[in-house]
Amino acid sequence: MDKNVMTFMACDSDYDEAEIVVFGAPFDGTTSFRPGTRFAPPVIRLESFGVETYSPYLNRDLENAAICDIGDLDFPFGNKVRILDMIEETTREILSDDKKPLMIGGEHLVTLGSMRAIVDQYPDIRIIQLDAHADLRNDYMDEELSHATVLKRCWDLVGDDRIYQFGIRSGTKDEFEFANDHTIMNRFNLNSIDHYTEELKGHPIYLTIDLDVLDPSVFPGTGTPEPGGVTFKELVAFLQSLEDLNIVGADVVELSPHYDASGISNAAAVKTVREVLLLMTDF
Amino acid sequence: MDKNVMTFMACDSDYDEAEIVVFGAPFDGTTSFRPGTRFAPPVIRLESFGVETYSPYLNRDLENAAICDIGDLDFPFGNKVRILDMIEETTREILSDDKKPLMIGGEHLVTLGSMRAIVDQYPDIRIIQLDAHADLRNDYMDEELSHATVLKRCWDLVGDDRIYQFGIRSGTKDEFEFANDHTIMNRFNLNSIDHYTEELKGHPIYLTIDLDVLDPSVFPGTGTPEPGGVTFKELVAFLQSLEDLNIVGADVVELSPHYDASGISNAAAVKTVREVLLLMTDF
Amino acid sequence: MDKNVMTFMACDSDYDEAEIVVFGAPFDGTTSFRPGTRFAPPVIRLESFGVETYSPYLNRDLENAAICDIGDLDFPFGNKVRILDMIEETTREILSDDKKPLMIGGEHLVTLGSMRAIVDQYPDIRIIQLDAHADLRNDYMDEELSHATVLKRCWDLVGDDRIYQFGIRSGTKDEFEFANDHTIMNRFNLNSIDHYTEELKGHPIYLTIDLDVLDPSVFPGTGTPEPGGVTFKELVAFLQSLEDLNIVGADVVELSPHYDASGISNAAAVKTVREVLLLMTDF
Amino acid sequence: MDKNVMTFMACDSDYDEAEIVVFGAPFDGTTSFRPGTRFAPPVIRLESFGVETYSPYLNRDLENAAICDIGDLDFPFGNKVRILDMIEETTREILSDDKKPLMIGGEHLVTLGSMRAIVDQYPDIRIIQLDAHADLRNDYMDEELSHATVLKRCWDLVGDDRIYQFGIRSGTKDEFEFANDHTIMNRFNLNSIDHYTEELKGHPIYLTIDLDVLDPSVFPGTGTPEPGGVTFKELVAFLQSLEDLNIVGADVVELSPHYDASGISNAAAVKTVREVLLLMTDF
Amino acid sequence: MDKNVMTFMACDSDYDEAEIVVFGAPFDGTTSFRPGTRFAPPVIRLESFGVETYSPYLNRDLENAAICDIGDLDFPFGNKVRILDMIEETTREILSDDKKPLMIGGEHLVTLGSMRAIVDQYPDIRIIQLDAHADLRNDYMDEELSHATVLKRCWDLVGDDRIYQFGIRSGTKDEFEFANDHTIMNRFNLNSIDHYTEELKGHPIYLTIDLDVLDPSVFPGTGTPEPGGVTFKELVAFLQSLEDLNIVGADVVELSPHYDASGISNAAAVKTVREVLLLMTDF
Amino acid sequence: MDKNVMTFMACDSDYDEAEIVVFGAPFDGTTSFRPGTRFAPPVIRLESFGVETYSPYLNRDLENAAICDIGDLDFPFGNKVRILDMIEETTREILSDDKKPLMIGGEHLVTLGSMRAIVDQYPDIRIIQLDAHADLRNDYMDEELSHATVLKRCWDLVGDDRIYQFGIRSGTKDEFEFANDHTIMNRFNLNSIDHYTEELKGHPIYLTIDLDVLDPSVFPGTGTPEPGGVTFKELVAFLQSLEDLNIVGADVVELSPHYDASGISNAAAVKTVREVLLLMTDF
Repeated sequence: MDKNVMTFMACDSDYDEAEIVVFGAPFDGTTSFRPGTRFAPPVIRLESFGVETYSPYLNRDLENAAICDIGDLDFPFGNKVRILDMIEETTREILSDDKKPLMIGGEHLVTLGSMRAIVDQYPDIRIIQLDAHADLRNDYMDEELSHATVLKRCWDLVGDDRIYQFGIRSGTKDEFEFANDHTIMNRFNLNSIDHYTEELKGHPIYLTIDLDVLDPSVFPGTGTPEPGGVTFKELVAFLQSLEDLNIVGADVVELSPHYDASGISNAAAVKTVREVLLLMTDF
Repeated sequence: MDKNVMTFMACDSDYDEAEIVVFGAPFDGTTSFRPGTRFAPPVIRLESFGVETYSPYLNRDLENAAICDIGDLDFPFGNKVRILDMIEETTREILSDDKKPLMIGGEHLVTLGSMRAIVDQYPDIRIIQLDAHADLRNDYMDEELSHATVLKRCWDLVGDDRIYQFGIRSGTKDEFEFANDHTIMNRFNLNSIDHYTEELKGHPIYLTIDLDVLDPSVFPGTGTPEPGGVTFKELVAFLQSLEDLNIVGADVVELSPHYDASGISNAAAVKTVREVLLLMTDF
Repeated sequence: MDKNVMTFMACDSDYDEAEIVVFGAPFDGTTSFRPGTRFAPPVIRLESFGVETYSPYLNRDLENAAICDIGDLDFPFGNKVRILDMIEETTREILSDDKKPLMIGGEHLVTLGSMRAIVDQYPDIRIIQLDAHADLRNDYMDEELSHATVLKRCWDLVGDDRIYQFGIRSGTKDEFEFANDHTIMNRFNLNSIDHYTEELKGHPIYLTIDLDVLDPSVFPGTGTPEPGGVTFKELVAFLQSLEDLNIVGADVVELSPHYDASGISNAAAVKTVREVLLLMTDF
Repeated sequence: MDKNVMTFMACDSDYDEAEIVVFGAPFDGTTSFRPGTRFAPPVIRLESFGVETYSPYLNRDLENAAICDIGDLDFPFGNKVRILDMIEETTREILSDDKKPLMIGGEHLVTLGSMRAIVDQYPDIRIIQLDAHADLRNDYMDEELSHATVLKRCWDLVGDDRIYQFGIRSGTKDEFEFANDHTIMNRFNLNSIDHYTEELKGHPIYLTIDLDVLDPSVFPGTGTPEPGGVTFKELVAFLQSLEDLNIVGADVVELSPHYDASGISNAAAVKTVREVLLLMTDF
Repeated sequence: MDKNVMTFMACDSDYDEAEIVVFGAPFDGTTSFRPGTRFAPPVIRLESFGVETYSPYLNRDLENAAICDIGDLDFPFGNKVRILDMIEETTREILSDDKKPLMIGGEHLVTLGSMRAIVDQYPDIRIIQLDAHADLRNDYMDEELSHATVLKRCWDLVGDDRIYQFGIRSGTKDEFEFANDHTIMNRFNLNSIDHYTEELKGHPIYLTIDLDVLDPSVFPGTGTPEPGGVTFKELVAFLQSLEDLNIVGADVVELSPHYDASGISNAAAVKTVREVLLLMTDF
Repeated sequence: MDKNVMTFMACDSDYDEAEIVVFGAPFDGTTSFRPGTRFAPPVIRLESFGVETYSPYLNRDLENAAICDIGDLDFPFGNKVRILDMIEETTREILSDDKKPLMIGGEHLVTLGSMRAIVDQYPDIRIIQLDAHADLRNDYMDEELSHATVLKRCWDLVGDDRIYQFGIRSGTKDEFEFANDHTIMNRFNLNSIDHYTEELKGHPIYLTIDLDVLDPSVFPGTGTPEPGGVTFKELVAFLQSLEDLNIVGADVVELSPHYDASGISNAAAVKTVREVLLLMTDF
């Protein structure tokens, strides 16, 4: 008798035939305020069954894409060094099989694991980050591996002027000053993306979406809600702007489903994953 | 001793003197994802007591209108054919008494009952639909009577180019293609209404508002939240655009109060009903 | 690359080697009051990871059992006749492979599908029902297939004095009178089970647990909460009483996770499934 | 066209033919901790449609009783003196028409309005109070009319040894000492009622149930949850003990529906009202 | 051993050295619909620890300001006359010590206490009110001291054309007509502030923010949610427009934390308090 | 101007005069399932204002006790070694000042910090643990310092037959077997305490209450709800049994307020703290 495996909607291709590979990274061990993102990957799969596979925004349909959802990585609880290694290893394997990874977090620190593998494969990588928070602290409570330092750790890997930040509206004064010198930060909004698409076309892109870039009104299900965010329409329009770029990997992080009993955050996360997957597909 | 009957705020005229008749259609039997709309009519009445009767948008007051709320239809649970008949019958009676019906759903399928009576009375009817979903499937899970097919069934009654759809942001590829040929679909937004008001002036109008046209941020209390919707301000501005049209009947559907413990969805539903009632009133 | 499939905790044996087969029946189409049980099976799997595999009540461990969770049946929405057929078919196949089925609902009507297969295989079957509701109406709103009629339909299959009902505290007067003549009904409590264990030992047993037999205090996540129910301790003690019986099939139904944001209902459902699985295992 | 009026289930007799008259007293103006009881009466009516009219505890059915629900009193917000007058007036009219009042609160202060009318009609009245709180302060924050003083105010009307208190588990030291001398207080539990039924038989009884006598586990929807309360089974058993007493009036107060999103408090309130109504009926 | 006192983030200066003094006014006794604002001050303090002290909007940091949070006033429950006196007295003392008060409500009536002291100190005061409601009734349910009359009572103190109202979208017809003649009311939006900044520069300003001016989507945690409000971005932009004005006192009122389990309302309230404090600081 | 400092109700003695010292330990860094206990101490203080200072169970009043609440320890986030040191240091100082510590957690690991100081001061200490979980693993996910290992670490300090465990209903098989040889474990219930009070009288006692010993029905606000727990009445009766013992220190841990929007868990935690404080007081 066959088992009926729950995947993200329509992401049921065989691994070997897949162009994109989805996996979950259910880790929230460094979250400072309100944890719970470890529950996001299975909830996103479950809730995806209330959403259409077709996107009227991109006029593309997941039914026509070759995507394999391999489920969640099986993490040793609490050991973030080992967890980052496992993410790196999985990403490396997907890349070496000539496929594109889409990771569902978990907290934002998981991005570092992916980036380590990405940088090796694509030394010329550019990072596009959507986020409420700068995530550029050097350490947080004496700790260098944290959701609050993750983009600083990515900067350690890629260097100046390679990280494009959008929607940032929270951080220490030091982080904003660091950004002035070392990253390309666009505060509060997403609409300046059009200034950069031309220069980004020649490079491989890693897209990391911290869903708290969305306003808490449409995305209350997150640990540190920051009012003043972008609307879902603005997020979708931003993604449409990326249509001609070469996105070689991506992640969608920081859904914490328990904080939103209404389920609207889950719906926003599911649709964001759908749009990113469709964006990464070669049509 | 007199009974104190709960009505929608200020809708306590006698039936005979009423210009508009409000009734509830508490049916949610074909809802595919998360049901509960059957609770909407009494909750909308109850919550209406926290809202003013005066609209600063339209500068009109329910206190000056002659409206009779006759309560909820008493449905046989589960029998959708009979339920649609009951709605048709009630609507027909209201119309034949030369009054205008305002139905509070319930799920969107209830619109079909009303439309059957409306089309007989007003063969030249035009339908204005506000909705996140196209609702244009021919069948859904082998079933032709469903919230997901209801506008297709209305199209069976009225034919091409009579249904004006606004705010649509979810559907199958087939539905969007059907709309290209047979309805007047405006995707994602409401603002194109001004292109149509002139041509609509000469016709009787039926207005059907699926409240999920609103963004889930302002209306989380619905079964299938679709991020990327319109704001309440946009909805109110749209309704103001209809001020010179001849609205002969209307419905407001798909509030599912249990999904929103905060009550903001109820408030949005109450105010939408208020604005629609004031719009339908001859001042 | 291997897929990581989510099962109920520790239920990851191969089908061929399994003694017990778990499957989900995510159907809630006849629920009269507040629906949502269709979400129960995946939520129970997800939440099972917060619970130990070892039961100190039975001193048994799921790690030592051979159980295969084959996932959820893939139902055509809304067609209850076909859905019951699919459940019957799956149960029949599991039984013919000489294994024991444990079905996770869904609403209580799903039990009928299982019973049709069970009765063929075990004509001498006895049913033990734990429930707040008698479920003995002949029809409900003119409908013979309903969560409110399901035990009446099972009685059609097995006849008088074969259904042992426990914890019943709600129903029409007619249902209670029918029970007097045709079933063995124990009202309000579970403790009379000891009177029956001896006579039940000689027969194959089907155990159907409507979780609303629990008091709403410990199990608020259900569509029709009925205060005055049993505690979880009483439920566990009841199950311990069944240790020497020959349970050939079982189901656990009526969790509606959306009604309980705290998650305690999920925990109660997970532990009930664990205890039933351990009870059905040959140790 | 007839209006369909929402009543408590099956309480749709004409006033003139009714033996019992139900009315709502939606007042919560003196609540000290978390208000909201003013929403209780309509919510109790709405939720009553998920509950059976037949009680297996009393083997009686509301369908066989003559009860008229006249809706909610229409209170001037904030004026507690006038509100108490209105309650007194309504109760007086019901009593003078030779019927029995059942009032649904609202906060506990509303009982005082009823008692003023009751004491005039039945000078020999005995009060049975179920409550978590003694409610025997002389004043609360300099205020003599309060939910925290209401039984003290009733004592002003009836005097020593006429108030039977059950389930009390919270109060100041002074209140407990006052009770020692002036009321018949039974702390923590309900089971001592059997000591008193004989002496109570000769007197008319007013029954006031503050639902917070129930444990917060089964009744979280209240302003001041006090753990250590009674179970619903214990409450029902207590009510069964009153079967031979002459209950001439009653109230059920302190449901605050917004604090319990799960709805189990509503269910407990509905069933309590049902049992009290059945108890008051002459069968 | 030192006590660790909880203050609003970084507001831990000594009173004597403080430029601004924060205090809580936990009163909600006249709230008409859904109360609970009395819990706002401690919740705002508690939740402030999830928010940065630095504002990228104003490029200022609370760490560099001298602010003293003196905790909540200790109100006699229910006595609104005495409560207003206490607020007046505290404000008067802060002003006489040459400091600026920032009061955290509580319901909007608390503003009247502050205004009485402010008007004495600054006879030339101008009031800027952000609010969904006009709050200009002369009385509400026969009561002249109410959250619904509070700006009318302030108008009694300051007279015509001194109250600048923004974002108003709810009220009786009479209130809107009163505003036409006596206040400067800007309906629905905040963006007209730029017309007034020049004329406001010469005057001391009292800023009163009823947080329900925000749309319920971003601020569901309030007693009377009014859809159609402003976004948090619009609120922040408005506050930035006030940067050159002389704000001598302020309040932030009407958070009701229990109505929003997700906590996004708390975050919006915390950030609003932060921005107002930074605006009042002399940098 | 004086600051108004929020303490646990009536715990406002000066440190020097206090017999008992309350402090918060807001740490939840090793929680495996659903975190959030770091929010418990301030929430418990806030909610204590809805509860009476007088206990009718013990006939004692906090108003008559000398207790000083020194607020929460100010932890470096994420560094559990340093956090345990801080707790140890604070406890040591309180003990050396001849006072008794009452710590409010946080997760259960915080107990280890206290025990290190306690064991030095009272080598003959006995531990009474109320808990759903054995907490006797040697390591959890390769980590020796965890909420799941904390009593094993305490056993390292005190040795065999010094830890009395009550209410345990969850753990691995290994933990239950370890308990057979090394601790005095009482499963499922609390009522066997009477067997031990005599032998415990001669020893100093440390009482550690993991609130999840309570049934999730009365205490849903915890990370790992385990159905089958004790009632609040049983907990209070247990505490009354300890009245003659010499409790030299105590803690109350594992409230996670965000999981229980109804607030009943907060009320249970507040009353438990009240009863423990009254128990520790010399009357």
